[in-house]
Amino acid sequence: MKIDVLTLFPRMFDGPMGESIIGKAREKNLLELNVSNFRDFSDNKHQAVDDYPYGGGAGMLLKVQPVYDNLQKIAETSPGTKKRIVLLDPAGKRFDQTMAEEFSKEEHLVFICGHYEGYDERIRSFVTDEVSLGDYVLTGGELGAMVMIDATVRLLPEVLGNNVSAQTDSHSTGLLEHPQYTRPAVFKEMEVPAVLMNGNHKLIAEWQLKESLRRTYLRRPDMLEKIELTAEMLKMLEEIKQEASEQ
Amino acid sequence: MKIDVLTLFPRMFDGPMGESIIGKAREKNLLELNVSNFRDFSDNKHQAVDDYPYGGGAGMLLKVQPVYDNLQKIAETSPGTKKRIVLLDPAGKRFDQTMAEEFSKEEHLVFICGHYEGYDERIRSFVTDEVSLGDYVLTGGELGAMVMIDATVRLLPEVLGNNVSAQTDSHSTGLLEHPQYTRPAVFKEMEVPAVLMNGNHKLIAEWQLKESLRRTYLRRPDMLEKIELTAEMLKMLEEIKQEASEQ
Repeated sequence: MKIDVLTLFPRMFDGPMGESIIGKAREKNLLELNVSNFRDFSDNKHQAVDDYPYGGGAGMLLKVQPVYDNLQKIAETSPGTKKRIVLLDPAGKRFDQTMAEEFSKEEHLVFICGHYEGYDERIRSFVTDEVSLGDYVLTGGELGAMVMIDATVRLLPEVLGNNVSAQTDSHSTGLLEHPQYTRPAVFKEMEVPAVLMNGNHKLIAEWQLKESLRRTYLRRPDMLEKIELTAEMLKMLEEIKQEASEQ
Repeated sequence: MKIDVLTLFPRMFDGPMGESIIGKAREKNLLELNVSNFRDFSDNKHQAVDDYPYGGGAGMLLKVQPVYDNLQKIAETSPGTKKRIVLLDPAGKRFDQTMAEEFSKEEHLVFICGHYEGYDERIRSFVTDEVSLGDYVLTGGELGAMVMIDATVRLLPEVLGNNVSAQTDSHSTGLLEHPQYTRPAVFKEMEVPAVLMNGNHKLIAEWQLKESLRRTYLRRPDMLEKIELTAEMLKMLEEIKQEASEQ
């Protein structure tokens, strides 16, 4: 997969995109990541990338020209790839796991990161997607792009090792994960539940399913409405509701 | 404000937490950020931080001891501060602007970042909050912690300059931002709307409000239900619905 990032702060990407999964994917040539500074493409003699908004108002806007020319350069460097061009914007569609799965099937992703300022509206005409990380305000799109790259790249074949990919992920099973414990059996008087140490796999599986349901019911009941519940799960949910009302 | 981060990948924080707003806040001593590697606190001779789950199952779990001892060290180093201890976890409460505002009023934030693995359940007993960045799976909590730090620190008094803080932010007015334009008036045959260049401030304000409403109506109708609409806004919404149905 090829990923290009347009930003005014390329150095922000140095640490996070060099370590762990992303760093390994780049070493194995499963990911080609290019970060470019669109200030380098400004045709202004002071390399300005922003200007005042027409009609007045506080704040500055990112100009259309530097972003356009940076995108042109990417089109010239990678003429053959099908590109998905993503504008990081708080007014965009909210990023989620479905979008990460979609992105992971693309050939070439391009992320455009704003910083402080808004975008000249015409920049939107060059992109295929406008995406927001969530309902909160960040100083720039850089961290958002890194989150989307991380969520996407870990889904590429061969990127995750078997031991990791086999793990049950919250948000991919539709239920939150049940509580888990590792050694020691007792730490500062806090004990591991006995059922997990008795070796009865049927009882353990039942306990894990019920505790997954309990955590989902208590924290994210909206997730329960999106999955099909078996008869066993419905019975457990009844018990959970009963137990919650008794506390 | 004091922020501590517990992670196995401290170098991930180098770039993003040194540049832009966060870097400036640290330079001005408005933020003291300490990133520690909880592997350094492992009492295991191989510095192991993870182990197999009781009851079986794929994947490894982060052990309780290294995290506990790292937290103890922070308690010793900063004995006087009121601490809010945040566990980054996909099963946690979803981070939003309200939580960023809450965090920005705290004296001392501590973020615990997992990586690949789940947490030994007993780690949760040391924290005040379990928070998720959104409904997607990441390889670790590091990027999530950086997003939360960015959203929080920009809200601290004196961190943002006037020109930036004065800007209207999406998600803080309750409406998405209207389209904005800066020079040139024409770029590759794409023109700035005439109303923005005629200098009539009343017409400009009306256009901006209506386009804010239009964008919110088309992209995030759920946001409209959360704010009080004036008579003028209701009339505009009627026009917007009419115009949308005519297209």
